[in-house]
Amino acid sequence: MKIAVDAMGGDFAPDAIIEGVALAIRAGLPDQVSIVLIGQQAVIDEQLQRHGVANHPALEVMHADDVVEMGEHPTKALSQKPNSSISIGFKLLKEKQVDAFCSAGNTGAMHVGALFSIKAIEGVIRPCIAGFVPQLNGGTAIMLDIGANADCKPEMLAQFGELGSIYAQYTFGIDQPRVALMNIGEEEQKGSLIAQAAHQMLKESRRIHFVGNIEGKDMFLNRADVIVTDGFTGNALFKLGESFYNIVTERGFNDEFIDRTNYESVGGSPIIGVNGNVIIAHGISSATAIKNMLNLAIRQVEADAHRKIAQALS
Amino acid sequence: MKIAVDAMGGDFAPDAIIEGVALAIRAGLPDQVSIVLIGQQAVIDEQLQRHGVANHPALEVMHADDVVEMGEHPTKALSQKPNSSISIGFKLLKEKQVDAFCSAGNTGAMHVGALFSIKAIEGVIRPCIAGFVPQLNGGTAIMLDIGANADCKPEMLAQFGELGSIYAQYTFGIDQPRVALMNIGEEEQKGSLIAQAAHQMLKESRRIHFVGNIEGKDMFLNRADVIVTDGFTGNALFKLGESFYNIVTERGFNDEFIDRTNYESVGGSPIIGVNGNVIIAHGISSATAIKNMLNLAIRQVEADAHRKIAQALS
Repeated sequence: MKIAVDAMGGDFAPDAIIEGVALAIRAGLPDQVSIVLIGQQAVIDEQLQRHGVANHPALEVMHADDVVEMGEHPTKALSQKPNSSISIGFKLLKEKQVDAFCSAGNTGAMHVGALFSIKAIEGVIRPCIAGFVPQLNGGTAIMLDIGANADCKPEMLAQFGELGSIYAQYTFGIDQPRVALMNIGEEEQKGSLIAQAAHQMLKESRRIHFVGNIEGKDMFLNRADVIVTDGFTGNALFKLGESFYNIVTERGFNDEFIDRTNYESVGGSPIIGVNGNVIIAHGISSATAIKNMLNLAIRQVEADAHRKIAQALS
Repeated sequence: MKIAVDAMGGDFAPDAIIEGVALAIRAGLPDQVSIVLIGQQAVIDEQLQRHGVANHPALEVMHADDVVEMGEHPTKALSQKPNSSISIGFKLLKEKQVDAFCSAGNTGAMHVGALFSIKAIEGVIRPCIAGFVPQLNGGTAIMLDIGANADCKPEMLAQFGELGSIYAQYTFGIDQPRVALMNIGEEEQKGSLIAQAAHQMLKESRRIHFVGNIEGKDMFLNRADVIVTDGFTGNALFKLGESFYNIVTERGFNDEFIDRTNYESVGGSPIIGVNGNVIIAHGISSATAIKNMLNLAIRQVEADAHRKIAQALS
């Protein structure tokens, strides 16, 4: 299994990225897992040296001249920079030279890159980004969409339920994932016109186990394994949830659950609904976040959820 | 000043309501403030006796035969139950026999009752519900809408900015309230089509001090005094924010800020954009919440924000 990592993407790249890869290597990668670092060869080599993992057998370096900056327009940047680390990452993924591609760089470019290279799975209306939400009982829910689609139609929301259910089934090993719709009341007639219509579609879907509406207050309360929401509300909720960690720990309190609300603990969010494994990490990713992102990538390649999604929709 | 309180509204009514009123009386109401308890006279009298405030000079009881239950359809309930405590509360408010009306009962009935009795201020597209959001620096922001309008047009969002600004100015005494739009990115081209359009309108408004977009992670970070959002996203965010208190305190931690994330600390949410002071309290309101709701009502009557809004829009 080969995991490609954009060495140049993120606010603290390449330092934090390469340090994170070094952490993962020193913690011990599973057999047959190797990492392909994409970026400026000289910079990467120097950093690998510094972290004591130069010439490690589980490491490859793929040179990329260019970098897509954080603020660049995704489509323009990708067409103007075919030799950027993100462009090359998607080229490798499309050619199946790697099994997953991860970056803490420009989120829009990662999303557009995935759509243009490995493309949406046939039958998927719109791929989306899934966020991992720690649950108070120790479990994890996935929330989707958390930002790829600010405007969603009801049929997109209904499909997010299916995509999330298959992802949770294969990646988390949950037999019949509970799918809930984020809404502003428990009753089915509550919410925006779009949420009301989506509720009916989710209720009628035979492919999922729909448990009804949940509210913002339920996000951490183990009410669902899959939380369906549009990319606007989902993004706002997910970011508020993430802010929780700093607020609480800066006040001198922490425990196992609070720790899991730290973005670092998962390290990335998969794009769901494309023909491959693409993981977007936080722009501010630290070395620890990158190490955990690699674990997620490995788990995702093993679970092979995107192929199960393609089978389910074919 | 007279504050009308629905004695029958809320999951723990009438007990928690009357206990809360008793708490407020024992803590000492400001001179010239009296409370009108609306509900079943015999039940209220017995409870007042139990809490040792029967026949208190600052108290009046107004009998109401009927009760709008929590699950009832707002419009139907109000038309079928003209002698319910909510219907009588709005009658008193409309006739200016009281200066404010507060209830922890059926939120929809409170909203519809306000629209049908004291009505929307001329020029207000849609009244909304404002939530108080404690800020880490000790201040308070108001977020609007938090649930009255699940579907919002850009011009409604832009107007929420104006309404919230005037409310914050007069109720909190903030000179030039900072108005921000809840969005999924800081750049003005980010977000849903509605958020993008609202951003432009807020930016062009000369009546407010618009500081741009904020994100979910900024909700507690003192980035704004007024947070503009649609009633769907706002409701979900507000309820997630409220859930922090239980999560943290159940884990054995608390401090001044965490305490302020407790819904009890403010005790209610005003309806903004109607011709009077209407406060909706949480269904689960405890006696402490009701006591604090009364403080908010007094403050709001003193601030007279609804008249300032009417002047600004005329």
